Amino acid sequence: MKLATLRNGSRDGQLVVVNRELTQAVAVPDIALTMQTALDNWQVIAPQLTEVYNQLNRGNYTDSFAFDQSQCESPLPRAFQWADGSAYVNHVELVRKARGAEIPESFWTDPLMYQGGSDDFIGPHEDIILPSDEWGIDFEAEVAVITDDVPMGISAEHAGSHIKLLMLVNDVSLRGLIPGELAKGFGFFQSKPASAFSPVAVTPDELSDHWQDNKVHLPLLSEYNENPFGKPQAGEDMTFDFAQLIAHAAKSRNLGAGAIIGSGTVSNKQGTEYGSAISEGGVGYSCIAEVRMIETIRDGQASTPFMRFGDKIKIHMQDLQGQCIFGTIEQSVKQL
Amino acid sequence: MKLATLRNGSRDGQLVVVNRELTQAVAVPDIALTMQTALDNWQVIAPQLTEVYNQLNRGNYTDSFAFDQSQCESPLPRAFQWADGSAYVNHVELVRKARGAEIPESFWTDPLMYQGGSDDFIGPHEDIILPSDEWGIDFEAEVAVITDDVPMGISAEHAGSHIKLLMLVNDVSLRGLIPGELAKGFGFFQSKPASAFSPVAVTPDELSDHWQDNKVHLPLLSEYNENPFGKPQAGEDMTFDFAQLIAHAAKSRNLGAGAIIGSGTVSNKQGTEYGSAISEGGVGYSCIAEVRMIETIRDGQASTPFMRFGDKIKIHMQDLQGQCIFGTIEQSVKQL
Repeated sequence: MKLATLRNGSRDGQLVVVNRELTQAVAVPDIALTMQTALDNWQVIAPQLTEVYNQLNRGNYTDSFAFDQSQCESPLPRAFQWADGSAYVNHVELVRKARGAEIPESFWTDPLMYQGGSDDFIGPHEDIILPSDEWGIDFEAEVAVITDDVPMGISAEHAGSHIKLLMLVNDVSLRGLIPGELAKGFGFFQSKPASAFSPVAVTPDELSDHWQDNKVHLPLLSEYNENPFGKPQAGEDMTFDFAQLIAHAAKSRNLGAGAIIGSGTVSNKQGTEYGSAISEGGVGYSCIAEVRMIETIRDGQASTPFMRFGDKIKIHMQDLQGQCIFGTIEQSVKQL
Repeated sequence: MKLATLRNGSRDGQLVVVNRELTQAVAVPDIALTMQTALDNWQVIAPQLTEVYNQLNRGNYTDSFAFDQSQCESPLPRAFQWADGSAYVNHVELVRKARGAEIPESFWTDPLMYQGGSDDFIGPHEDIILPSDEWGIDFEAEVAVITDDVPMGISAEHAGSHIKLLMLVNDVSLRGLIPGELAKGFGFFQSKPASAFSPVAVTPDELSDHWQDNKVHLPLLSEYNENPFGKPQAGEDMTFDFAQLIAHAAKSRNLGAGAIIGSGTVSNKQGTEYGSAISEGGVGYSCIAEVRMIETIRDGQASTPFMRFGDKIKIHMQDLQGQCIFGTIEQSVKQL
């Protein structure tokens, strides 16, 4: 099943069911007005939405309409929980290596996760609006899951069954603000502005065999200023799967229905010690910071600049037949 | 105006207007079903709720009922934004001093703030349920504000006008988990479990002259296991007022209506270098950690234990006539 939220002037938008090819949508006001309402009552509502989805795919709806991704909000325009892991430890290792440090051994067994802000997500085709492009604006291409209610203390073994929907994320980061914030010891705040999510959230069965072991086994595609930038395999080098990330998040708290848990920047180790760009025959990267780290390690300094006003990022994922699964995140950076 | 949220089996509870003496309440389903709905449309709804409040105080409602704090959810049972400052820099200075470190000079000019989780707040009279009391369970008595929509980049000068409601908070902390988490660099997550808020949220005018300079100028009362534990003046030693905290939070993001911004643990410097307990004639403390820090500085080691299963904490605030303003947070620690 594929679901989206269309702009309708309200804060939470309008829930719609989208067909598999992302060409047609249908509103479901009799079932649920918003994505959060559906998630609040998922056990009852999901079967009803699935029935609509099946009928829509068969072309049985006379009141369906053309699905326009540019009219989408993030599937949850605002959420009660957004916790982002950093499950691709290769990414973390590169960050540390670029500043001459090793990662602690525990990073391979204890997930990194930060508490994100979730009150004002931006739409998948909306601009990334910020006051300054001197703050080291970067994208981070990630995968995320949405859960139903998860009880405190759940084991990783049982956490996977709470994954109800999957999305892509652009976890916008302000690299220039991160060192100062982390030095204060309280984690990210100003350095993690509003994130954007893919137009469409899908149930895991939409990925068929590509959803295995609580990981998405497909390349995550990033295009920066219309050039291929990254195509790492999201299922490779993911040290902690989504079930482990959920269990980590729920160690000392319940997670409410509609909680979003992110993977962190998707990053493959690749064959070379330092990875390689798509132009060099590699799978590239899911953020600019990683290229800059590799430049720093290799050349002694970073040469690729962070995003400037006007720069564009596109993030999407295709199945093996080239069918777009989640729709595309397509954003430009604009000045406030 | 005083507002509360009663348990009604739904995730967001039922909004009620409460009279000034906290004895009577009235439901307002024709105006707004939930606190979030009221905040989403505050400009339109607040005047209607104020009219109900005025009538209720005059005893004009035949369908009002006895207000029972034990039936309350936190005013927002779940929220889209919960950002907690650490505005009483004395508290931070003690933390550092206890481990032999100085605080950076910038801590006096640049607020500390962490992004909290907000999907599963606990009710003001609900137990603090955790799997282990070996994690260093502590309370933190704080003041918090709820805002309407705050635009990115707002100045502190203009931020104060966005404060719509005030509450008290018990920002439960797991001290034993904090050092390990902060060492990882991503801030608090597992070490900040669900918080509880006071039964009642009030508009700033309810504090009359005690709301000045975007601070609450009254003592914040904590009773630990039924003994007085803290009565620091919330208006003193607050290095950053709520307008400054909001401006800090909004530097690189919009804050959505219903955003909760906390003060951090209320802490007074007191006359002595190291503060003093109520039993020693001082104003005491708003968390156990602070006592332990003072013991560490003074005696070389901490002797007051953190909370164990069965321990009780009560947090409240009175006006100069002894009238309870926000209702009381009254919680016990229980095993999951």
